[in-house]
Amino acid sequence: MEAYECVISKRDTRAYLDKPIVEEDLRRVLQAGRMAGSSKNTQPTRLVVVTDRKRREEVAACAKFSQHLPAAAAGIAICLPSTGSDFDAGRAAQNMMLAAWSLGIASCPCSMHDQECVKKTLGLPEDYRVVVVLALGYPDPAVSMHLGRKRVEMEELVHDERWQGKSAG
Amino acid sequence: MEAYECVISKRDTRAYLDKPIVEEDLRRVLQAGRMAGSSKNTQPTRLVVVTDRKRREEVAACAKFSQHLPAAAAGIAICLPSTGSDFDAGRAAQNMMLAAWSLGIASCPCSMHDQECVKKTLGLPEDYRVVVVLALGYPDPAVSMHLGRKRVEMEELVHDERWQGKSAG
Repeated sequence: MEAYECVISKRDTRAYLDKPIVEEDLRRVLQAGRMAGSSKNTQPTRLVVVTDRKRREEVAACAKFSQHLPAAAAGIAICLPSTGSDFDAGRAAQNMMLAAWSLGIASCPCSMHDQECVKKTLGLPEDYRVVVVLALGYPDPAVSMHLGRKRVEMEELVHDERWQGKSAG
Repeated sequence: MEAYECVISKRDTRAYLDKPIVEEDLRRVLQAGRMAGSSKNTQPTRLVVVTDRKRREEVAACAKFSQHLPAAAAGIAICLPSTGSDFDAGRAAQNMMLAAWSLGIASCPCSMHDQECVKKTLGLPEDYRVVVVLALGYPDPAVSMHLGRKRVEMEELVHDERWQGKSAG
């Protein structure tokens, strides 16, 4: 897939086929997370890959909107130490989701509402937390990918040179 | 450029040619930010595009490690309301930096250490802050891209099924 097309066409998708991810593809997704840039090259992100369905059910029980996680083919918990930034975690997550999408694998981040629950389930060290768990799986072609999901208009998103309209400045 | 290759080869780069970014390419970069997924599709990110060099100098004066920002071809300030998450900002930033890279444009995020300074310079509303400013420009071929910049080993990055080694669980 062409890079720009991959970036533009990726949608967060929660409907997956019951089909495991090819080991080599999963490895490539993890490598994409590894190569993500980070503030001062601190590389704070650590990943827990959960392919076991029962454990994914346990992880999903720590969150509110997580029905898609057990039904996925794999989950990748994105973990940060207390000193790590969510911005860097977001960069690594997007790298992995785009790499996955380039391999035909859909994904969606799943927020973890009960941190103590998910930390215990995954055995995290005390000073780490789970930012999100990425659900990954081959997309179910029977379910629409919501390609028309609305985005804010470019005029609302982008300000030229300085914030236009109501501001403090 | 092939998508996976783009994701894997992108490096944060601070050396740029003195050459403006083609308007259409800049538009494509912004569109990549626009299409990034976000928590519950809240799309919290707003962007201030700074092509004017004088204003980029003013923005750079609000930060510590920002020498590359005035010398870049453009800056994109990634702004979030108080309710927005840095994780979503990271996703949008990575989308834009990868789209740029697919067009041959290098980039590097620049942290803003003095928020009051940058908010005033860009005229942001009171409840917004600048997460980072992306510096963008065509890479200077005379400067190494640090392709060998070290990453943690895969074995240190990735844990299978559950955190291995020292943990709380």
